[in-house]
Amino acid sequence: MERTLIGDLRQAIGQKVKISGWLQVLRDQKKMQFLVVRDRTGAVQVVFEKKADPELAEVISTLGSESAITLTGMVVDNPIVKLGGLELVLETLDVVNKAEAPLPFEPFNDTLPSVDFRMDWRYLDLRRQQSLLTFKVQTTAEMAMRDYWMKQGFIEMHSPKIMGTPSESGAELFELAYFDRKAYLAQSPQFFKQMAMAAGFEKVFEIGPVFRADPSFTSRHMTEFTGVDVEISWVDSHEDVMAFQERWLQYVYQQVKDAHGEEIKEVFGFDFEVPSVPFPRVTMAEAIEILRSVGYELPAERKGDIDPGGERALGDYIKQKYNHDFVFVTDWPISVRPFYHMRHPENPGLTRSYDLIAKGLEITTGAQREHRFEVLRTQAFEKGLTEGPIQFYLNYFRYGCPSHGGFGLGLSRLLMVMLNLPNVRDAVYLFRGPNRLEP
Amino acid sequence: MERTLIGDLRQAIGQKVKISGWLQVLRDQKKMQFLVVRDRTGAVQVVFEKKADPELAEVISTLGSESAITLTGMVVDNPIVKLGGLELVLETLDVVNKAEAPLPFEPFNDTLPSVDFRMDWRYLDLRRQQSLLTFKVQTTAEMAMRDYWMKQGFIEMHSPKIMGTPSESGAELFELAYFDRKAYLAQSPQFFKQMAMAAGFEKVFEIGPVFRADPSFTSRHMTEFTGVDVEISWVDSHEDVMAFQERWLQYVYQQVKDAHGEEIKEVFGFDFEVPSVPFPRVTMAEAIEILRSVGYELPAERKGDIDPGGERALGDYIKQKYNHDFVFVTDWPISVRPFYHMRHPENPGLTRSYDLIAKGLEITTGAQREHRFEVLRTQAFEKGLTEGPIQFYLNYFRYGCPSHGGFGLGLSRLLMVMLNLPNVRDAVYLFRGPNRLEP
Repeated sequence: MERTLIGDLRQAIGQKVKISGWLQVLRDQKKMQFLVVRDRTGAVQVVFEKKADPELAEVISTLGSESAITLTGMVVDNPIVKLGGLELVLETLDVVNKAEAPLPFEPFNDTLPSVDFRMDWRYLDLRRQQSLLTFKVQTTAEMAMRDYWMKQGFIEMHSPKIMGTPSESGAELFELAYFDRKAYLAQSPQFFKQMAMAAGFEKVFEIGPVFRADPSFTSRHMTEFTGVDVEISWVDSHEDVMAFQERWLQYVYQQVKDAHGEEIKEVFGFDFEVPSVPFPRVTMAEAIEILRSVGYELPAERKGDIDPGGERALGDYIKQKYNHDFVFVTDWPISVRPFYHMRHPENPGLTRSYDLIAKGLEITTGAQREHRFEVLRTQAFEKGLTEGPIQFYLNYFRYGCPSHGGFGLGLSRLLMVMLNLPNVRDAVYLFRGPNRLEP
Repeated sequence: MERTLIGDLRQAIGQKVKISGWLQVLRDQKKMQFLVVRDRTGAVQVVFEKKADPELAEVISTLGSESAITLTGMVVDNPIVKLGGLELVLETLDVVNKAEAPLPFEPFNDTLPSVDFRMDWRYLDLRRQQSLLTFKVQTTAEMAMRDYWMKQGFIEMHSPKIMGTPSESGAELFELAYFDRKAYLAQSPQFFKQMAMAAGFEKVFEIGPVFRADPSFTSRHMTEFTGVDVEISWVDSHEDVMAFQERWLQYVYQQVKDAHGEEIKEVFGFDFEVPSVPFPRVTMAEAIEILRSVGYELPAERKGDIDPGGERALGDYIKQKYNHDFVFVTDWPISVRPFYHMRHPENPGLTRSYDLIAKGLEITTGAQREHRFEVLRTQAFEKGLTEGPIQFYLNYFRYGCPSHGGFGLGLSRLLMVMLNLPNVRDAVYLFRGPNRLEP
């Protein structure tokens, strides 16, 4: 018999079906047993009259919760049952994989252990309704991103994660032994996606891992995360990149709302909203003025930059003033931007770059890139780089590289913002941090 | 003015347009200049009468081929022009990025330098028509894979690439310094996708990098490649996995044919064919019998395995006998399979596993996995593993893990097979091998 998904049982009333899933709840009464069985599409109440098969009743009473089971039975309409107004009258039950008792923790209890303990038993943690929905939303969001790219003729990239030379600054770099030499893990596909522009691919995207040997212990930093990267040729300025990104994000939000809006309301308890475009824009200078006006003091040691507290304060201000969750902060000073960001011709101390702040969290850095070989080389030298390690990169600009710009977005940070998750550990399949390499 | 793609010029006859692209050919005659300009959608002839603007004519004559340019002009119908039967009468031309002359090599010459030299200048190599089409086909193939998964309710995974312990054998492993400890690069998402089964995700996919410290120098090995991984719960045997994979691949081939069949014919010179299902299946024992019958001698030192020559001979036999490019080789002996492959209950020396051979090249390994905790642990010990390093993995099977199976497929190998590419270096954006970490 073919398996029926629990979410489809309503269409099978009056029929005998086979379902597979996890035993979420067992109420073992004197004459009757009530089971709640769950699969990835929903949960159903299963009812069994013990005297029908005392041996099977005995098997059921010893089943630990969260055991994996396959069962058959008749689907009957029953309006008083809370779970979908139907139940399954059990006929056979096959224990596919018994859960030991007790579980390390009960994923369906109201109180949960610490996030660190949940990470130790992440696969049990992922059985929770919120976790499963988080990754369904991620799946939908990524597919929406790609749909949008495909409609515009983008090419998908898979750039190497092992590099022979450090890609950017050399800081926060993981080093590995590569046969008889050293190599490094890519901190971003930055140089590789720019190579695609020199290759004439014109529009590329990549969703893949990036690595940062960042010793931070915060609710939003990871040593390995999934980066979403875009690069587009023939742009006139960073404004073209922002105009692309805001429409693209709006589309992604709309697709998530269409597919999961109701379930998000039910599971996370809020109305999922699609942002309007254009997103508000402020220059870096204006942002600093705003922060001054609301009394937020930027730490002196990060001159020209905005710290996480400043991002939150700015996000609050934008929310209040424009009722918008997003804000582009543009025109960052060259001191806090990498050498390859293009500079404003009329104000060479500023770059044609932006950050995107969403609900007070930085989720994107973008820019137009400098594509003129001589200018780029000069800017690299100004930043103290030497030609050797970036020779391959500089070569991209020697034989017909179009103007281009792009951005990188952290997938888990976007998910945090979308679903109001307080900790990035809940927005990633398996967290990696300075103290966390398992499971 | 908005840019018009060269592929769309037919719809703009009689209009003034702006195009952007690369100067592929320049014929500089006494009175006229003819340019072939290319973007990612096609090429067009541009014509310019020098006396209209001698200064511009001078700029054009000094332009190196492959320079990036933006130009405007009138689109006119001209049936005698080979490139699409139209041409652009030039008005203005803007040099976005001049190409130095001479180029390291001319990508549009009939004779090309060695593959190693092409890799040094990969971005010029990628401008070739065959290269661009290769990555358009890859993009379409990946989207088709995901479409198929989405229709069946799969969840997308991004598993960590940094691991605290070796995932499988410990051989061919890259080691890295991770703060004050050692870590390893993932050789496959195997353990992580099985964790998704324990998490109740039921059906997952991942497309991401995998790393093998393999010192081989062949036309089909890489130290880093893009793996396509699938894992499915509640399977009854490896047959369920094969039945999924062949239909999925058929769908992918169909989508590629629909989108690129004609261009593949034009650029690669063959008719792109969609494979029929079911694919032929032979057991490992039958495969060895077939190889014996065709006189292929398997190397003695790889007992129970099939070497690359044997794969080619088997592929030829299947092609001749069944006129099919694919063959599943099933039921491999436990000696050549990892501990987690499920064994045949009626013949415990054989595993419920398969390889998929396509045009004589192994592109996939798949299997049903052992999901019974005690059996799995025993099989691990038999293979000489100790519990410590795989404790986290073994724990996945203790609290309700359903039966499951899956496969991994090498994306570049699939592309080699699809497009008859002789070398994997042509089927990957940037090749990584023991001697190759640049660009």
